[in-house]
Amino acid sequence: MISGRPFLQIPGPTLVPERVVRAISQSLIDHRGPKFAALLQEVLEGLKAVFQTSEGRIVLFPGSGTGAWETCLVNTLSPGDRVLGCINGHFSTLFCETASAHGIQVEKLELPYGHGILSAQVEEHLRADKDHKLKAVLVVHNETSTGVTSNIAAIRQAIDGAGHPALFLVDVVSSLASIDFRMDERRVDVALTGPQKGLMLPPGMAILAVSDKALKASKSARCPRSFWDWGPVLERNARGEFPYTPATALLFGLKESLAMLAEEGLPNVFRRHARLAEACRRAVQGMGLKILAKNRDEYSNTVTAVCMPDGFDSDAFIAHAQKSLDMSLGIGLGKTKGRVFRIGHLGSLNEMELLGGLAGVEMTLKSFGVPVPLGAGLSAAESYLLESAATGYGRP
Amino acid sequence: MISGRPFLQIPGPTLVPERVVRAISQSLIDHRGPKFAALLQEVLEGLKAVFQTSEGRIVLFPGSGTGAWETCLVNTLSPGDRVLGCINGHFSTLFCETASAHGIQVEKLELPYGHGILSAQVEEHLRADKDHKLKAVLVVHNETSTGVTSNIAAIRQAIDGAGHPALFLVDVVSSLASIDFRMDERRVDVALTGPQKGLMLPPGMAILAVSDKALKASKSARCPRSFWDWGPVLERNARGEFPYTPATALLFGLKESLAMLAEEGLPNVFRRHARLAEACRRAVQGMGLKILAKNRDEYSNTVTAVCMPDGFDSDAFIAHAQKSLDMSLGIGLGKTKGRVFRIGHLGSLNEMELLGGLAGVEMTLKSFGVPVPLGAGLSAAESYLLESAATGYGRP
Amino acid sequence: MISGRPFLQIPGPTLVPERVVRAISQSLIDHRGPKFAALLQEVLEGLKAVFQTSEGRIVLFPGSGTGAWETCLVNTLSPGDRVLGCINGHFSTLFCETASAHGIQVEKLELPYGHGILSAQVEEHLRADKDHKLKAVLVVHNETSTGVTSNIAAIRQAIDGAGHPALFLVDVVSSLASIDFRMDERRVDVALTGPQKGLMLPPGMAILAVSDKALKASKSARCPRSFWDWGPVLERNARGEFPYTPATALLFGLKESLAMLAEEGLPNVFRRHARLAEACRRAVQGMGLKILAKNRDEYSNTVTAVCMPDGFDSDAFIAHAQKSLDMSLGIGLGKTKGRVFRIGHLGSLNEMELLGGLAGVEMTLKSFGVPVPLGAGLSAAESYLLESAATGYGRP
Amino acid sequence: MISGRPFLQIPGPTLVPERVVRAISQSLIDHRGPKFAALLQEVLEGLKAVFQTSEGRIVLFPGSGTGAWETCLVNTLSPGDRVLGCINGHFSTLFCETASAHGIQVEKLELPYGHGILSAQVEEHLRADKDHKLKAVLVVHNETSTGVTSNIAAIRQAIDGAGHPALFLVDVVSSLASIDFRMDERRVDVALTGPQKGLMLPPGMAILAVSDKALKASKSARCPRSFWDWGPVLERNARGEFPYTPATALLFGLKESLAMLAEEGLPNVFRRHARLAEACRRAVQGMGLKILAKNRDEYSNTVTAVCMPDGFDSDAFIAHAQKSLDMSLGIGLGKTKGRVFRIGHLGSLNEMELLGGLAGVEMTLKSFGVPVPLGAGLSAAESYLLESAATGYGRP
Repeated sequence: MISGRPFLQIPGPTLVPERVVRAISQSLIDHRGPKFAALLQEVLEGLKAVFQTSEGRIVLFPGSGTGAWETCLVNTLSPGDRVLGCINGHFSTLFCETASAHGIQVEKLELPYGHGILSAQVEEHLRADKDHKLKAVLVVHNETSTGVTSNIAAIRQAIDGAGHPALFLVDVVSSLASIDFRMDERRVDVALTGPQKGLMLPPGMAILAVSDKALKASKSARCPRSFWDWGPVLERNARGEFPYTPATALLFGLKESLAMLAEEGLPNVFRRHARLAEACRRAVQGMGLKILAKNRDEYSNTVTAVCMPDGFDSDAFIAHAQKSLDMSLGIGLGKTKGRVFRIGHLGSLNEMELLGGLAGVEMTLKSFGVPVPLGAGLSAAESYLLESAATGYGRP
Repeated sequence: MISGRPFLQIPGPTLVPERVVRAISQSLIDHRGPKFAALLQEVLEGLKAVFQTSEGRIVLFPGSGTGAWETCLVNTLSPGDRVLGCINGHFSTLFCETASAHGIQVEKLELPYGHGILSAQVEEHLRADKDHKLKAVLVVHNETSTGVTSNIAAIRQAIDGAGHPALFLVDVVSSLASIDFRMDERRVDVALTGPQKGLMLPPGMAILAVSDKALKASKSARCPRSFWDWGPVLERNARGEFPYTPATALLFGLKESLAMLAEEGLPNVFRRHARLAEACRRAVQGMGLKILAKNRDEYSNTVTAVCMPDGFDSDAFIAHAQKSLDMSLGIGLGKTKGRVFRIGHLGSLNEMELLGGLAGVEMTLKSFGVPVPLGAGLSAAESYLLESAATGYGRP
Repeated sequence: MISGRPFLQIPGPTLVPERVVRAISQSLIDHRGPKFAALLQEVLEGLKAVFQTSEGRIVLFPGSGTGAWETCLVNTLSPGDRVLGCINGHFSTLFCETASAHGIQVEKLELPYGHGILSAQVEEHLRADKDHKLKAVLVVHNETSTGVTSNIAAIRQAIDGAGHPALFLVDVVSSLASIDFRMDERRVDVALTGPQKGLMLPPGMAILAVSDKALKASKSARCPRSFWDWGPVLERNARGEFPYTPATALLFGLKESLAMLAEEGLPNVFRRHARLAEACRRAVQGMGLKILAKNRDEYSNTVTAVCMPDGFDSDAFIAHAQKSLDMSLGIGLGKTKGRVFRIGHLGSLNEMELLGGLAGVEMTLKSFGVPVPLGAGLSAAESYLLESAATGYGRP
Repeated sequence: MISGRPFLQIPGPTLVPERVVRAISQSLIDHRGPKFAALLQEVLEGLKAVFQTSEGRIVLFPGSGTGAWETCLVNTLSPGDRVLGCINGHFSTLFCETASAHGIQVEKLELPYGHGILSAQVEEHLRADKDHKLKAVLVVHNETSTGVTSNIAAIRQAIDGAGHPALFLVDVVSSLASIDFRMDERRVDVALTGPQKGLMLPPGMAILAVSDKALKASKSARCPRSFWDWGPVLERNARGEFPYTPATALLFGLKESLAMLAEEGLPNVFRRHARLAEACRRAVQGMGLKILAKNRDEYSNTVTAVCMPDGFDSDAFIAHAQKSLDMSLGIGLGKTKGRVFRIGHLGSLNEMELLGGLAGVEMTLKSFGVPVPLGAGLSAAESYLLESAATGYGRP
């Protein structure tokens, strides 16, 4: 047993804010009664604001981000359809594998870990598809495994530039409510996420926003579907219900976390994430370590993947940090297994928590044998936080 | 706003006991760390005891009972397969519709609402299937829509009597941890449930127990599957992990509710449900109302469906009860819409709560215009509770 | 272990509403910081409304109702002072004993248990005190031990009728926020209470409202005092602080319970208590038992003391009820020990909870050997609740 | 609104650990029932272990540490009695003022802020009291206002050396369960505290341990007392009750915090506090600031009072830190008002929390204009934590 509060520095699930924990602990209500209908309505409206969409319809399932992939695919595509799968990390790989499992043919546009999707490549690929055989483009906005954010605006321009009618299906699992994502402005057709990242909830839901075009596509999509069929959800939602037993407790929490986001203001939420992320990166560099992401303008504001120095295994380091300080860091996934550790800096987080977490990283690296100069990382982070603070010290 | 504690007399979700609420509110932990692995191990073992299985493997998903239907079917069957669907209410109908949605052909063995599955009919049907084209028998142990419990032992005997190798797939959503269900003894191949009934949790999971035979069947089953594929779950569980982000908070709660069930003792849990259910039925009959279930030995111990007297609409009555006393009752589903209301008596419940709920039913029926003799139902319930109590008054 | 929710039918502490429990569980804040000052201000204003005072000053201590007695006395009186102590039960006796312990001489105006204070006697006594040697009149508004509410308006008239300048010191422990109490209109000088009754909090505070006259009296009062001295409290409160470490968590809860009272509206709160209390009394009489309170217009709306039939010991009955159903009833205190049991019906409570509790009383009386006709009490309560309900059924 | 978790770096109340928060949120139970008696028994035994006493009796009141002073004094002394009051800070001053308020004559042995009590002075003073007019010696073990811990063993030796029979009354408010305090070994007669420091609870109680000698003294002590009279408490506790309504919710929490202390082990608890305190001091010195406490062996392991550099007002700095980072620091009290700020490091706390808090101090000092070298304090703390960690990194 370790005294005090835990530091969960993984890129989600994040620590759930007290207000949300309390909301979740309310007595359950009848999911077919009038109070539930009011709750649902409020949550759907709040989510639309977070997805920055007025046109999109929100679809909720008890499930996970993984389930959201499946929902997105089986509702819009048919077995045998071809899609363009943009792959630059572990989660984009899995998104495409989900498609394959349902008989969808994935043309892969693959980039090395650490790079963002190249919009020029997307455009070139789509231009080559003269017959418009490609039904959709699959992209992960923020690759949680590598700490790289791809440029959704540029990819939208690429699709438009190619004059291609493909659906634009975007995983925003680790970006929504943390990094600026604009569903309507980018004309994204399906944006999908889970609750345990920027939405600051415990895991247990699949959350999607669906465009009219995607809805239309679902009329003819022939992937077998039952649980994940969004048709009955939208139909029953109109009556304040669900076709399944909803995760009512999470909806209580979601109402509260949406209220918190609204109180802070989305632009402030994005700025806070950007500032904390930059402080984290300065600290990592101050410690003499390298960041996996290759391009500054693709650095993720929710997670930083740090390259473990040669000769050290990141899995062993993470176990050491866990054992020493009860601190949880994210492991290297897929091709980076054993080679990177990841620091999550998203959701409900402030400067002092981040600095406490970075101090933990410094100390455990040192005691693991990595020659980091104590305090160098922290002072770099502190300097940045001070210079980037609003007037006086103030807050961003 | 209505003062005091709510009465949620629907047949699930039930009110979550305080202990479980508190467990759920713990700080999230890394779902890839050592604490999580220990939690998972404990929960899997505890669930096996509740399913009364030593052979079965537990499979967990963030989802719902509806998702558990899909998991059960897509892992064991292939498009084009034939199954025997035993239908005696709304949920057994939906279970079979889920099969159809995935291309499985359902031979329906249908009985009127209020009846349990007739094992003789099952046996007859299976005997007629000389070529063993039927791959599975689908049964709902406790039809939540009608308050009827079918005899799983007899159906097992029917399958054996016919010498039929079909898989035995049983929905135990509203029976597990409330009504005696024995996976191993009845050689059930897949038993599936959700957390929000006898397991006393908020909704948000699909929970299954899977036999060796079902596991074997999954090797050749060809329904497309990705999220609901139990293969990766079992594989990753062996390493203390999941292939998706698990609903950690619910697992905290599940550990606690399993501890509560173990403390009370499963036989005592079953006896408590049986006793409260009989008290509820006596009350209903004391009020001069009829129970939908036709046969005494099929009365459900978790939910009682009550026939609304002629001339009264049950949906309007339920809305009246909600408005008058903030009491939630279950609506009539499917063919009984507007004609029955359902009283849930499962999960964490005691005598006084039940009697308070029944008093609410008496009063709101009366004020709705139904000529019930005030106190007649309650005194019948009280009499039974007194006579059935252990020595002195004591507790069952 | 008994399943389900507990029934705590004692006259306080009462079950704390979920909203308040959640408020109490917030992270502590610095009791010398700006957030605390804002919290304090809000709580003080809210309490003034509940005491129905605009002139009075609120004084808070970590403590209990017993501590509020001491605060009231040591701040307004000096050793050797004479007071008129109105005694009609256990708690009024203790209030006067607290005075004696501090060297105050108590002239006792004693009435048998079950009676309210007779204002005529008070007037007669005060008239006889021609030299105005009596410095204060001590009254308990609602005698929690007997379930009797004295008429504060009449006692005020008696004091005025006698033209006597004595301070009017009133214990409103089990009446405030449940039974109409009007500090300003009755010109009460000190009204004192605890948080665990009508204010719906866990115990742990002494809460007082103090008139200008009482404040003035405190300038010359010479009882030694340090902790309970309200002078420093009022002085530091003006700066948003306390001279001791305040029970911050309870203040979080108090803010919430005051919000709940404001939402329901004090007149509705009083009506709800009156209605539930009358239903309880009808039930008790329906069971063939006698109420200790002698006069209908003095029946308490927060607690009913029930006479145990001859030949039965109430302590043994209460232990039986506790053992049988985990139901807590109030014991007979002082002169009624072993002869009465008390049913609390105050705070956050609704019809179904009350009826569940009364059902528990019926059943455990029966199983204890008291020949109560099952259902008779409950049907009487139900009838009254139905006839007294607002239009349709509705709510009071 | 500031995102993330708050940093409450005041020397109590401290942040309540989750486990304790959850325990406090349990449904209230009857304070006169059998469950309560069992809870009380467990809590009293647990507290004896924490006070390191087998002889002492525990006395609990709803109240505060301030109330514990009064309890201690009015139960053991009489108006007119003389006592030796050891004063070296704000709280020892107030302890003595409480005595004066009750008519007790205090001979003051005063030392400048920053110094511990000199046992030689105590011995000299007591030797001079040939007639043993001094009835008690009043000492504060850990002066929360200055961050100085006095040597209780040495003061005991001083009393013994003088052959003086005075009672030894010790305030352990900010030392119990954090700094080694041994009631029996030091033959302390009354040790008193509150729950909101090392016991990790919200404030709201007065907690005392009382020796046989103190109990005997209470028989003849003549200070008027009623609420704070420990006689009825001890008498009723023997029957599992209290003479007032106890703060049941806090007792739930206390049971849990005592369990946590027992799990960690008192010696480990002391070592953890010592290590975190030393890290804090190294950080403060690394920032170029001075510690108020003069002697290394009197440095407090629960709170560090830091001298504000000349030209800076500590109240203004604390307000700046609060506004900038929502961090709460302790203000300078009494003679140090405006000249020191205090960092609390007690209760449920770990390395990363401490370092996060120290980072907050560094940053806000800097932005307040104090020329601190960023990172210097933190690296000093980190170095010490690393070198003082158990094998590998491990934990102390």
